[in-house]
Amino acid sequence: MIIVLKPQSTKQMVDNFVDSLQKNYDVKVNEWVGTQSTVLGLIGDTSAIDIDYISAQDIVESVKRVQEPYKKANRKFHPDDTVITLPGGQKIGDGSLSLIAGPCSVESERQIVEIAKSVKDSGAQFLRGGAFKPRTSPYAFQGLKAEGLELLREARKVTGLPIVTEIMRVSHIPLFEDVDIIQVGARNMQNFELLKELGRLDKPILLKRGLSSTIEELLMSAEYIMAGGNEKVILCERGIRTYETYTRNTLDISAVPILKKLSHLPVIVDPSHASGISWLVEPLALAAVAAGADGLIIEVHNDPQHALSDGAQSLTPEQFDQVAKHVNAAAKAFGRKVG
Amino acid sequence: MIIVLKPQSTKQMVDNFVDSLQKNYDVKVNEWVGTQSTVLGLIGDTSAIDIDYISAQDIVESVKRVQEPYKKANRKFHPDDTVITLPGGQKIGDGSLSLIAGPCSVESERQIVEIAKSVKDSGAQFLRGGAFKPRTSPYAFQGLKAEGLELLREARKVTGLPIVTEIMRVSHIPLFEDVDIIQVGARNMQNFELLKELGRLDKPILLKRGLSSTIEELLMSAEYIMAGGNEKVILCERGIRTYETYTRNTLDISAVPILKKLSHLPVIVDPSHASGISWLVEPLALAAVAAGADGLIIEVHNDPQHALSDGAQSLTPEQFDQVAKHVNAAAKAFGRKVG
Amino acid sequence: MIIVLKPQSTKQMVDNFVDSLQKNYDVKVNEWVGTQSTVLGLIGDTSAIDIDYISAQDIVESVKRVQEPYKKANRKFHPDDTVITLPGGQKIGDGSLSLIAGPCSVESERQIVEIAKSVKDSGAQFLRGGAFKPRTSPYAFQGLKAEGLELLREARKVTGLPIVTEIMRVSHIPLFEDVDIIQVGARNMQNFELLKELGRLDKPILLKRGLSSTIEELLMSAEYIMAGGNEKVILCERGIRTYETYTRNTLDISAVPILKKLSHLPVIVDPSHASGISWLVEPLALAAVAAGADGLIIEVHNDPQHALSDGAQSLTPEQFDQVAKHVNAAAKAFGRKVG
Amino acid sequence: MIIVLKPQSTKQMVDNFVDSLQKNYDVKVNEWVGTQSTVLGLIGDTSAIDIDYISAQDIVESVKRVQEPYKKANRKFHPDDTVITLPGGQKIGDGSLSLIAGPCSVESERQIVEIAKSVKDSGAQFLRGGAFKPRTSPYAFQGLKAEGLELLREARKVTGLPIVTEIMRVSHIPLFEDVDIIQVGARNMQNFELLKELGRLDKPILLKRGLSSTIEELLMSAEYIMAGGNEKVILCERGIRTYETYTRNTLDISAVPILKKLSHLPVIVDPSHASGISWLVEPLALAAVAAGADGLIIEVHNDPQHALSDGAQSLTPEQFDQVAKHVNAAAKAFGRKVG
Repeated sequence: MIIVLKPQSTKQMVDNFVDSLQKNYDVKVNEWVGTQSTVLGLIGDTSAIDIDYISAQDIVESVKRVQEPYKKANRKFHPDDTVITLPGGQKIGDGSLSLIAGPCSVESERQIVEIAKSVKDSGAQFLRGGAFKPRTSPYAFQGLKAEGLELLREARKVTGLPIVTEIMRVSHIPLFEDVDIIQVGARNMQNFELLKELGRLDKPILLKRGLSSTIEELLMSAEYIMAGGNEKVILCERGIRTYETYTRNTLDISAVPILKKLSHLPVIVDPSHASGISWLVEPLALAAVAAGADGLIIEVHNDPQHALSDGAQSLTPEQFDQVAKHVNAAAKAFGRKVG
Repeated sequence: MIIVLKPQSTKQMVDNFVDSLQKNYDVKVNEWVGTQSTVLGLIGDTSAIDIDYISAQDIVESVKRVQEPYKKANRKFHPDDTVITLPGGQKIGDGSLSLIAGPCSVESERQIVEIAKSVKDSGAQFLRGGAFKPRTSPYAFQGLKAEGLELLREARKVTGLPIVTEIMRVSHIPLFEDVDIIQVGARNMQNFELLKELGRLDKPILLKRGLSSTIEELLMSAEYIMAGGNEKVILCERGIRTYETYTRNTLDISAVPILKKLSHLPVIVDPSHASGISWLVEPLALAAVAAGADGLIIEVHNDPQHALSDGAQSLTPEQFDQVAKHVNAAAKAFGRKVG
Repeated sequence: MIIVLKPQSTKQMVDNFVDSLQKNYDVKVNEWVGTQSTVLGLIGDTSAIDIDYISAQDIVESVKRVQEPYKKANRKFHPDDTVITLPGGQKIGDGSLSLIAGPCSVESERQIVEIAKSVKDSGAQFLRGGAFKPRTSPYAFQGLKAEGLELLREARKVTGLPIVTEIMRVSHIPLFEDVDIIQVGARNMQNFELLKELGRLDKPILLKRGLSSTIEELLMSAEYIMAGGNEKVILCERGIRTYETYTRNTLDISAVPILKKLSHLPVIVDPSHASGISWLVEPLALAAVAAGADGLIIEVHNDPQHALSDGAQSLTPEQFDQVAKHVNAAAKAFGRKVG
Repeated sequence: MIIVLKPQSTKQMVDNFVDSLQKNYDVKVNEWVGTQSTVLGLIGDTSAIDIDYISAQDIVESVKRVQEPYKKANRKFHPDDTVITLPGGQKIGDGSLSLIAGPCSVESERQIVEIAKSVKDSGAQFLRGGAFKPRTSPYAFQGLKAEGLELLREARKVTGLPIVTEIMRVSHIPLFEDVDIIQVGARNMQNFELLKELGRLDKPILLKRGLSSTIEELLMSAEYIMAGGNEKVILCERGIRTYETYTRNTLDISAVPILKKLSHLPVIVDPSHASGISWLVEPLALAAVAAGADGLIIEVHNDPQHALSDGAQSLTPEQFDQVAKHVNAAAKAFGRKVG
């Protein structure tokens, strides 16, 4: 940590500040005096130091971290890729391309089972589907809730596909006991109470990036889960909020190689939510594969025109079949492991 | 609601679509045919229509709402200002300027009581203080929790100031039973499960705007609380995320007059979080008063340099005393009711 | 164009407004009356109508365009892809992948000739190099100017590569007479006086998207050039400004398929400026190819550590050789025409 | 300047780098070795060092400036407020509130003279009006050009109000010879060639902040003008581009006190462009005064409904009269000098 002091600081003030730093933290402080300002360099484990605390000091002009504030999610301390393995043997992050597909919302047994069979035939290894739905309007369809989870289990029984579904509330955790991968949505990425509780589980968590969260904040939210003991975190880039209005969000494709460099966790991309437009799903999915994503999560609906939510970005099963063919061909061309 | 159809739509397709709209919703559909496209106008109560559902139709090019999607928060249906009155008689939204002040975090009985007395002397009518703290890092101080609530009650007993403090989790609601105003933080503005539960209470909710939420999304979150029956919502502008890095957030001062126009709910401003810099608190607080805010929520710490969180943006009691004098003088100059 | 009128408009006001619209413009106006508001639909050529003029009317609540405001750049009126052909036979937009490479700034004859030979050997078909440099600081190196153009011509003579270089001022146009492709930088995307003058030339213009320009604004700037008669415009996505600070800009990968759909003009991507980090160039270049870009413009420097500008994002010739191999292999895998 | 080196740097690499820094620049380098990385501190005049050059070095992890990169615009080196005095004695930046008012575009002699008289009666000290108009569409009204300048002179003759009007092109400078204050629009804030030429004049320049420019970039553009010898620069905050769509731009009210702290130049606010909505002009103007702005530039049109540009944000003369009364009253209440 580097601390730039204000130009007008006296030697006495600097000495007192240095003393207090060395007394309160397990660090050594190096000091050098410039023509305009004095700068301090803190050596040791600075991750316990609150950067806001330092900034608040009268004597401090600005502060710069040298170490990243996350540890368990940091590739520096864990150079090998994390591979998430499910009880059924499916893997995410092992060099293959994982395809997660299914409807935005579970609507009926027939709907979810039919879609599950179809996406499996097209090569998806995981089934997604929302039972509890975060909706901007209190008057919009909020999902089938517990019944939706039941229908997902039914679809899993029929197809063998592990299920991925979103949680919105700590008290629902028992309902998600036999869900294979629990999803945390963008709006809950900094619902720290939820993250803490999920950190106590032994189950993969698919953590979506918040609408305007930085890459570092996403990694800090992963750190919340991992700090509790659950290191099975899958990161998901799903578009960020910008001034551009043509798309619902702006896919931050750079986040894929950056997250892979900074962290050992698997990184997947959601081209459906990133754009909000079904015809953009294929080019964005291909771009994600090209940029090194470990997987894709794609919305598929057997009848997008009557979907109860997010129809505009859903593919039909036939469209998904084409997209799956193309992304798998691309993955192969990029030398990715293909089942 | 206005629906622009794709240029290539046939008459048969348009007729089928119009029929289905009139069958499924309580609306009448007007239709007019342009040289390039056909446009439909839906008349009636369109707030139950999911805009995503309409966008998903093959035949649809784009959709535009005419009615706002919020009702209970909408000034059109509730022209008079909502005034929040506490059991002790304090009011927010009655034309006076409400001052809410206190530390970011409650740290000790001595700290909170001392600050409470001091801000009361300076003219604050409400005491703020965090017991449960949302922190980006799992390793940062997370608040004194239940003990912090206890200390706030103690400070209220001593000073008579009603207390305002943040909730982060549904299961904590019983702990907040005798809190005077419950705050929902920016990161939880779209924690819809929490909003729904707060909608069942009969207690004022101070709802902060999310980091990158639109004005409409803030009103929709207020609508979540109000739809449950609790109409005592106070809106809070606290800065939004932009590309500018000098300040922590960018205060969207325009949000004040816009929210006052669109909604009847009181609007307050948080200049401390909006800037993250203590010397900016006064000019931003004055700007908020000038723009018509019903109140201000300001961080004050008796010892900002040793604050356990957000020290860089906290005022000392002496600084707050000056700011309070200046904002009250400004409120008076702007013809505001002064206690 | 669809115009929503204010709820309180009287029939007399509406009639007057409709009359004035039909008198002033070559349009017919359809009108329908809802429970809350009246809506007008304008049929005919509305591209001459100023949307601001309409919004300013007392009676108007909001306005929505149905037609895009650009015509010559619009694929609707020009369904086939535009292919730019240079006198030497090189093509951009014909289904192949065009590689434009070279240093940020031309620094010396030896530097530019050496890099030109090297990028040609690696498969680049065009040489880029800045002679006039837009720099944020007046104290930074501003380019070799006319001498830089001379050195680019020298490098072209040696290698046969057409040259691409940036113009910053109308009065420099004569200096650019034998430049093969003139580049308009992001900061000048809305320098309309410059665009107008370039519209009088018969020479390809590489138009970079502004730092915070929308896709529609980029197309409107292309329209400025095309309206003057020069239809040889190449669009370039080079990253937009967002709140994320890890990268210098955020590559908006979605812009590639969107621009290809809305317009017939070729679209290239600049992964060097989009990220500002050399190790991100390859994954972003691959993503651009996957998303359908017609070409790439990449910074290469024989000695990035001593580059006079933008060294941090430049590749060495050896690195570029690898990237060129990989992007060409990807282009082939995606079924692109390969020279 | 502080340079953090990569953890794996060897002593030999560090020594070579330090030597080269000391040889190439007029700086001394202090060095300290941490457990994870070595950090260098450069002492001396670092404003000539290109931060990109430093970042490009293999050995460098990251760089942080301590000194601001602007000098002539910097309050540190020029503690007293700059006061701009016009030949007629009018002042900007002397503690009074300057009101600049007039139409977006000059449309006719009658229009501009009538508005000039009216805004003068209401207390404006300067007349604004566009002769050359930057428009997004090549098909929109582009201003009366030289004739517009002539009409502005006419209005000045009648009223005595100095005129403020926008320049878009270097070759137009002679036409602006007797313009009192030359405006540089947001889209040209980084048209460095134009800035350089304006730097050679002896005439006040009103420099508007770019649509997505940082505060530092605005100051660097002021520095371009000042570096040429013209120190009469007036900074103008006019709203920045964000994700919020209710307003055309988002007024960054914090920019006012920040610019006043970092620089000695006068700062004015444009509430008309910042919001794009006429009813927001008053609350934003009041907020600007409260935050310490030296002046306001406001669009006024005698017939906004028939304005040829930007009608939606223009006030009528009657509305402006009210706004002027209210902002002057506010200025007085805030202890500002009142003519």
